Amino acid sequence: MAKIPLIIDCDPGHDDAIALMLAASASDLFDIKAVTTVGGAQSVDKTYYNARRVLAAIGLDVPVARGAAQPMVRKALGGTEIVHGQSGLDGPALPEPEGEPCPLTAFELLCQVLEEVEEPVTICPTGPMTNMGILLAVRPDLKKKIKQFSIMGGGFYMGNWTAAAEFNILADPEAAKILFDSGIPIIMSGLDVTHKAYVTREENEVLRQNGNRCSVLAAELIDYFSRYHYEVEKLPGCTLHDPCAVAYLLAPEIFSGKPCHVEIDVDGTYTLGKTVVDWFGHTGKEKNVLVLYDVNRPAFVKLLTEQLARLR
Amino acid sequence: MAKIPLIIDCDPGHDDAIALMLAASASDLFDIKAVTTVGGAQSVDKTYYNARRVLAAIGLDVPVARGAAQPMVRKALGGTEIVHGQSGLDGPALPEPEGEPCPLTAFELLCQVLEEVEEPVTICPTGPMTNMGILLAVRPDLKKKIKQFSIMGGGFYMGNWTAAAEFNILADPEAAKILFDSGIPIIMSGLDVTHKAYVTREENEVLRQNGNRCSVLAAELIDYFSRYHYEVEKLPGCTLHDPCAVAYLLAPEIFSGKPCHVEIDVDGTYTLGKTVVDWFGHTGKEKNVLVLYDVNRPAFVKLLTEQLARLR
Amino acid sequence: MAKIPLIIDCDPGHDDAIALMLAASASDLFDIKAVTTVGGAQSVDKTYYNARRVLAAIGLDVPVARGAAQPMVRKALGGTEIVHGQSGLDGPALPEPEGEPCPLTAFELLCQVLEEVEEPVTICPTGPMTNMGILLAVRPDLKKKIKQFSIMGGGFYMGNWTAAAEFNILADPEAAKILFDSGIPIIMSGLDVTHKAYVTREENEVLRQNGNRCSVLAAELIDYFSRYHYEVEKLPGCTLHDPCAVAYLLAPEIFSGKPCHVEIDVDGTYTLGKTVVDWFGHTGKEKNVLVLYDVNRPAFVKLLTEQLARLR
Amino acid sequence: MAKIPLIIDCDPGHDDAIALMLAASASDLFDIKAVTTVGGAQSVDKTYYNARRVLAAIGLDVPVARGAAQPMVRKALGGTEIVHGQSGLDGPALPEPEGEPCPLTAFELLCQVLEEVEEPVTICPTGPMTNMGILLAVRPDLKKKIKQFSIMGGGFYMGNWTAAAEFNILADPEAAKILFDSGIPIIMSGLDVTHKAYVTREENEVLRQNGNRCSVLAAELIDYFSRYHYEVEKLPGCTLHDPCAVAYLLAPEIFSGKPCHVEIDVDGTYTLGKTVVDWFGHTGKEKNVLVLYDVNRPAFVKLLTEQLARLR
Repeated sequence: MAKIPLIIDCDPGHDDAIALMLAASASDLFDIKAVTTVGGAQSVDKTYYNARRVLAAIGLDVPVARGAAQPMVRKALGGTEIVHGQSGLDGPALPEPEGEPCPLTAFELLCQVLEEVEEPVTICPTGPMTNMGILLAVRPDLKKKIKQFSIMGGGFYMGNWTAAAEFNILADPEAAKILFDSGIPIIMSGLDVTHKAYVTREENEVLRQNGNRCSVLAAELIDYFSRYHYEVEKLPGCTLHDPCAVAYLLAPEIFSGKPCHVEIDVDGTYTLGKTVVDWFGHTGKEKNVLVLYDVNRPAFVKLLTEQLARLR
Repeated sequence: MAKIPLIIDCDPGHDDAIALMLAASASDLFDIKAVTTVGGAQSVDKTYYNARRVLAAIGLDVPVARGAAQPMVRKALGGTEIVHGQSGLDGPALPEPEGEPCPLTAFELLCQVLEEVEEPVTICPTGPMTNMGILLAVRPDLKKKIKQFSIMGGGFYMGNWTAAAEFNILADPEAAKILFDSGIPIIMSGLDVTHKAYVTREENEVLRQNGNRCSVLAAELIDYFSRYHYEVEKLPGCTLHDPCAVAYLLAPEIFSGKPCHVEIDVDGTYTLGKTVVDWFGHTGKEKNVLVLYDVNRPAFVKLLTEQLARLR
Repeated sequence: MAKIPLIIDCDPGHDDAIALMLAASASDLFDIKAVTTVGGAQSVDKTYYNARRVLAAIGLDVPVARGAAQPMVRKALGGTEIVHGQSGLDGPALPEPEGEPCPLTAFELLCQVLEEVEEPVTICPTGPMTNMGILLAVRPDLKKKIKQFSIMGGGFYMGNWTAAAEFNILADPEAAKILFDSGIPIIMSGLDVTHKAYVTREENEVLRQNGNRCSVLAAELIDYFSRYHYEVEKLPGCTLHDPCAVAYLLAPEIFSGKPCHVEIDVDGTYTLGKTVVDWFGHTGKEKNVLVLYDVNRPAFVKLLTEQLARLR
Repeated sequence: MAKIPLIIDCDPGHDDAIALMLAASASDLFDIKAVTTVGGAQSVDKTYYNARRVLAAIGLDVPVARGAAQPMVRKALGGTEIVHGQSGLDGPALPEPEGEPCPLTAFELLCQVLEEVEEPVTICPTGPMTNMGILLAVRPDLKKKIKQFSIMGGGFYMGNWTAAAEFNILADPEAAKILFDSGIPIIMSGLDVTHKAYVTREENEVLRQNGNRCSVLAAELIDYFSRYHYEVEKLPGCTLHDPCAVAYLLAPEIFSGKPCHVEIDVDGTYTLGKTVVDWFGHTGKEKNVLVLYDVNRPAFVKLLTEQLARLR
């Protein structure tokens, strides 16, 4: 079977890093064409550097490009140090980037990859949607080369940055609106499902005991990342938001989702950046998003543990 | 023990009618001071007439007054005939109103009652919040005479009229904003809990078999009202939204709630009328609302069935 | 000829005070039924006290009632001390109020007057529109008793409190929206015309030299009020905003106006409280407002000077 | 003296065509680096074709590139056929485009020009700001290569497409917001000044009597374009909006302007796309725009007539 051509657009970030590992572990399934990075949670300089360090740790040799430093229309939100630390990826030691920096910007690399592919590509945005908003605004002709977006972002019933909004959407709501209005199929791993995709301390020890370098690294990332979840969010484990967007591609059968119409709020005083999900179909509008709302958590943890064991 | 002085502000409506019955059945607990009516779902002429017919059926002799015909700031929504029929209370035969119409408007009656009482009153709004918005805007000095609002309206994770909004709030969002910003304690029976407060066909037969006039009437109201729930909303029973606001006062122990900060969205394109619930405390603002999110359904149905058996 | 039944709804305020004098001076034309006061610029306690002191100075014996202390839906703006001083009417010495305080609230007094009159009344709101919004929301049946509103508020091309909004509208935009959407004829003395209705220092001396008590008082009010206009706004004279709304009724021929559709912005980030005037008819909507945009300034000053000479 | 490096970003359109002619006529002053086109008023296919036909008529050999077909975030407005006809440039006969189409998109051409220049470039956007929004969002590093924007768009006191908004801004408000928030100096020829920059029938005959091909063409464009102004807008002449943005660069001394803070409204119900001009400095924010508000009309017409005589 032909592999799935894949682009990961991210802002590592601990859970982005694990999403990258999960994707890299499935080299039989995915043909990773590029990794692009975006600012918002951290400066794009940091997320670019972090992405390259993670790929060096994995030993994955794909083009990595630096993308947007700022949201398309608004000011950057900032304030994520409490979650990811000053570097954007605090905790474990990581190797320095390998190879030469990519001479292309994220926008240029995305265009190049999409122009060249024959099979439409799946894109996993796991950070603010700025690179995607730009791509779709500047090159609508390339929409036909995008099979689907499997995103981490939003949520039906809750926010995590305001009462109504999740960080990745709130960080660049206009870019998210462009993506959601694009007509391209979207699978949305929002907080509804990602808050159910957590790893307990005990499960993290099992992951660590895989013993291979990458599993240990992932366990250490989870050690750091979980502090915020335990101490600030009072959650029962370490929530692995971004890996859901990749895991769905590997094992859609362990997720539950519902096709819904979803709009991005770009003007409400208290609702800016909310993914307004029409769960019950009140609007009668086209169901543009598969909204994931549940995951078989043991199966998700098992998938992650087994896949990461395949890395070096 | 002193009775709870109570005002019911409603727009009957099948579930309003049952809420009135439930309140009337607890004559040992409640001292019902007044019933006020509001337009929005139906014309206020219809809801006033309906409320008086329901009270005639129950044999409850309290002042009933006609309130606002229109929302405070916006145009009326309309469109509820699909739920409640042309009369606003289609289905069972109801007696004509008894006694003389109250010479006071709802606003005047509310002021009179609140001026006269010594103990602060509990108010149950089960329709659009217009009468309450007006009362609070015109007579803020009477706030101290209102102990709490136990409202039916809003919802944390869903709407029923748009993707984001519930009817009672959407019908007059500015009035709802005035109520929610008033500083008076609020218990909110939103869709989160009211969708769990349903009566199945079998349970409705048990209610009917109480045999007394009012139980039979309630069962017939449920017969009509459930059609919308089964056919349009595809729900597992007849959802009794408004009775929740009264039932909480009778048996708070069968409900689960969480104190949260709640804002009313009055300006979002897709979120107008949403009760923006800060479930996780992201805003750090004052917890102005007890948001009910669950009910012990068998206990709720038992309470309803036993209470209505006490009426004539 | 029958006199024009008139109600002035104000928040004195130097220019409100002069508007009251101007109305009182035309006892042959106006039958002043009531003066109602509103908070927003200052506390309603201050504006009520100030209105009664001004009427005592004039010797005008009409009912004065205290109205809304707060905007209908939002928080009060405040911050007008820079214009009117701490008392809301700093500068000249004023007598204490005469007679007993009116036992009615502004809302009650407005209702009483409108219920009793046979001829529809003209109302001049020269402060935030809160009392009017409340009246129209609670008693839409009394609309037929209101011939027209001659308001001071808004502006076509400018604001004075934000880039887009004038104070009286911004102070309670929802109340203004209710008034503008009411269907009752509106003459709007916005900043377009009121900034042309100024009195120079020389003209103020002519007014003072009328010699009668009220002319001297008016000149002293202008002495104080003009400081803000000269020093902060760098204007060529003392702008008499509120008197325009009364002067139009006395001498419509000295004003130029255009019938336009006007909406009140209640949700724009930078435009909240703007009177959106459809000057060129782009919307095709009903022309609900006569937008005054020019005044024969010498004639205006002459009218003011001559009229105030008629007072004691 | 070194010439001013210039880029014109347009959507011809009759007045865009005359703006192009005016720029081309000043070959002693301007070094025209590129012409880019944008959709919104018409399809970008039409505006690209029209721009190339106009340049063929002028005999101006500069790269012309096709830009954005759609606004960045919203749907296209459309509806301009009433102004410019079905072709977007109805009326006079125009030659077919000369030379090969540019292989670069507008975005690519803009990047190439800006990367190559040593002196920062002046850009005249005379259509929706989409190409500019994209450029600034994707390549903020190129801001330092842009000396200033001289735009046609917006207005202080009026709109021409809604009560509050001018077409070019309303057509892509988010792109306009990016431009206005960019920190790059902006000269804004809004409706305040462009409505004063009209050509009467008599003056158009004088232009035609220049006799050269381009003057005759311009006169014929004005013949067609003026129909809308006379018949629909009831104006005293043919308003030459877009040429103002070029004329200011040629003769700033004939214009009057005021530095102001300007925000773009992207969320008001009635004010979407308004350029909110803080004329009186109420906000205290940085004066990011020189707002032109008047022009010496005879001097403007003389400039246009004399300049166009210099073309072939």
